[in-house]
Amino acid sequence: MRINEHYAKLPAGYLFPEIGRRVRAYQAAHPDAKVIRLGVGDVTEPLAPAIVEAMHAAVDEMGSPQTFRGYGPEQGYDFLIDAIRANDYAARGVEIAADEIFVSDGSKCDSGNIQELFALGAKIAVTDPVYPVYVDSNVMAGRTPAAGADGRYPGFVYLVGTEANGFQPEPPSVPVDVAYLCSPNNPTGTVATRAQLERWVAWARATDSLILFDAAYEAYIADPALPHSIFEIPGATEHAIELRSFSKRAGFTGVRCAFMVIPKAVTGADPSGRRVALNALWARRHTTKFNGASYIVQRGAAAAYSAAGLAQTTAQIAFYMENARLLREGLGAAGFTIFGGVHAPYLWLRTPGGMASWELFDRLLERAQIVGTPGAGFGPAGEGYFRLSAFNSRANVEEAIARIRHAFA
Amino acid sequence: MRINEHYAKLPAGYLFPEIGRRVRAYQAAHPDAKVIRLGVGDVTEPLAPAIVEAMHAAVDEMGSPQTFRGYGPEQGYDFLIDAIRANDYAARGVEIAADEIFVSDGSKCDSGNIQELFALGAKIAVTDPVYPVYVDSNVMAGRTPAAGADGRYPGFVYLVGTEANGFQPEPPSVPVDVAYLCSPNNPTGTVATRAQLERWVAWARATDSLILFDAAYEAYIADPALPHSIFEIPGATEHAIELRSFSKRAGFTGVRCAFMVIPKAVTGADPSGRRVALNALWARRHTTKFNGASYIVQRGAAAAYSAAGLAQTTAQIAFYMENARLLREGLGAAGFTIFGGVHAPYLWLRTPGGMASWELFDRLLERAQIVGTPGAGFGPAGEGYFRLSAFNSRANVEEAIARIRHAFA
Repeated sequence: MRINEHYAKLPAGYLFPEIGRRVRAYQAAHPDAKVIRLGVGDVTEPLAPAIVEAMHAAVDEMGSPQTFRGYGPEQGYDFLIDAIRANDYAARGVEIAADEIFVSDGSKCDSGNIQELFALGAKIAVTDPVYPVYVDSNVMAGRTPAAGADGRYPGFVYLVGTEANGFQPEPPSVPVDVAYLCSPNNPTGTVATRAQLERWVAWARATDSLILFDAAYEAYIADPALPHSIFEIPGATEHAIELRSFSKRAGFTGVRCAFMVIPKAVTGADPSGRRVALNALWARRHTTKFNGASYIVQRGAAAAYSAAGLAQTTAQIAFYMENARLLREGLGAAGFTIFGGVHAPYLWLRTPGGMASWELFDRLLERAQIVGTPGAGFGPAGEGYFRLSAFNSRANVEEAIARIRHAFA
Repeated sequence: MRINEHYAKLPAGYLFPEIGRRVRAYQAAHPDAKVIRLGVGDVTEPLAPAIVEAMHAAVDEMGSPQTFRGYGPEQGYDFLIDAIRANDYAARGVEIAADEIFVSDGSKCDSGNIQELFALGAKIAVTDPVYPVYVDSNVMAGRTPAAGADGRYPGFVYLVGTEANGFQPEPPSVPVDVAYLCSPNNPTGTVATRAQLERWVAWARATDSLILFDAAYEAYIADPALPHSIFEIPGATEHAIELRSFSKRAGFTGVRCAFMVIPKAVTGADPSGRRVALNALWARRHTTKFNGASYIVQRGAAAAYSAAGLAQTTAQIAFYMENARLLREGLGAAGFTIFGGVHAPYLWLRTPGGMASWELFDRLLERAQIVGTPGAGFGPAGEGYFRLSAFNSRANVEEAIARIRHAFA
């Protein structure tokens, strides 16, 4: 039985399981330590009351013979798709058709699975640092030889985010088929401006390339002038796919719901040059290898768009962003150089004195019992940086600031 | 932007969306017709009270700051994994470790995704007729040239189920890497005996092949002497992966939960001949491209193993199997030749007078307003047969029998 040999090209552990391993080892050795987790970007506030109420109602429906629902539409229920169209797109002047939205059980799945639509020989561009799923899923599919000594895969094009470019690299200058772009950015917490997104769309149109736009954190954008969707940029509907999630916007990391928008005008070329709509390909993938998100979960997601749900989830986001402000100001006052954290729940710290990022991870865990995420886990260009998330209670955030200041005083 | 060209090798529509299309067209033309659906194998009974209660409790937990849960373990929560180990395996004398079980959002996803672990050049064997996902997912991955005029893909090995072999074909006689085996079988409703499974395991051991054993319908096995798991056969733990689902056992088609068992002893070979554990590969896939099943859903699934949950779901299965008995006897008395439906919720009818199966589909829809599934949708060897599901209310099943008898009198 012959296995897929490309998995062996992956680094030994996926970043977050490795962090979990080190934290468990520390806690086993220090059972009384009160560890504060600002590592994995996981929400901490409970589900909003409007969502809880809607999910209770859905559970009751499933328990009654008159209202029970079996298999739903693989693309998602209309009640959710219509709420998405109205609130996320029409409200910002973007017209998206119902059959251009695909509801799923999570953005990690969507961003890992979407590469199945690309040719095996398709050239992929990613930023560095980058959300690891974009890279790993393409490695697993066999789109690159093994990584070099610098940790980079020779099959991919890397767009390096630096302090000089504000961690918003320009589009590729060499031909690629697909570029993954995340804004507000995970891990750097920075956000693309309208002018930057316009350059991306112009590049995609000029080169007949595809932008995979991951907007999982769009709800954290504070400045109303910043675009939330790539489709707010004219011309994007022929050259972009957008990923959205309820994980960070409505506290759904343990509930699981997300969606992708694939306009019908987005096409790619088959080997004969014939244009094929990616919407049709994904519809085929979605109906063949997926069976819809849970009905109960979709009812909860739809409730996030009700008047009460919007007010409650908006308040949660404001709460997390106040955490981000406290972290930014508190650590900034302690001498740390900090990026991001204004339109995203992530802060991107320069490590003090050029320290290696895993060294800072271990030091923060040992000296301050704080868990963060080493920048090196997001790619070679993340070395020398460190991600802190704003997802925690106010008390823990304040305690974390005090501990970090004390440990680095 | 270059696309995956292999999707174009798929037939125009996935079977069930095509059935849906025809039914919608019929209903649009006959708005007063009372259509009875025995096509898609979708449950109709509401969730058991024990499951409803557990999901309400889980929703409340998610709404409280003290008990809220974010990201769960990608493999699934221990409370569910332990219930699976005890009830599905230990109770039948099979020892499965906790880290050999991977909880997911559905067996369709698992059976479509598992092929990512196989080499692109791996040779795949499927039965004919077959659950289409096994075939289509391997076509989409590029493991075969386009189908021939006979509807078969030259890259696959087909094991033909016939009346002569009781729709339980023998293992392949040519080398393959992986064979997909489904028992109780979808679509034929037949079940493999212990002796047949022993021949499969002996074949896998002798040829160093892998059996993908889909036991999604094991809860419908009526004869206590029949194995429910491939792992009840000695030697299988080195050569088999098992798929299980809560969809048909606990009415979860709209709730979404399933699991795979991948014993750590199951290995495949990389190009250098080194043996690699499939468990480790799937763990990597699961953590990289999946984020766990919904906590609320997992609590519901675990409740299906409580004393009340087991009693309630067992009663539901008995109810559906009484439907199957009525269909078998009623249509048998009307002159139909019927297979299956004793240890599975599916009946496999020989079409009368050698009628084409899509012709019988259209005729049943038009004359009796009954939706079934044409055998040809499951592969060339399904032509001349027709699947009826036992999932419906008693009144609808009795009405369906009367209508079919009348239409074919």
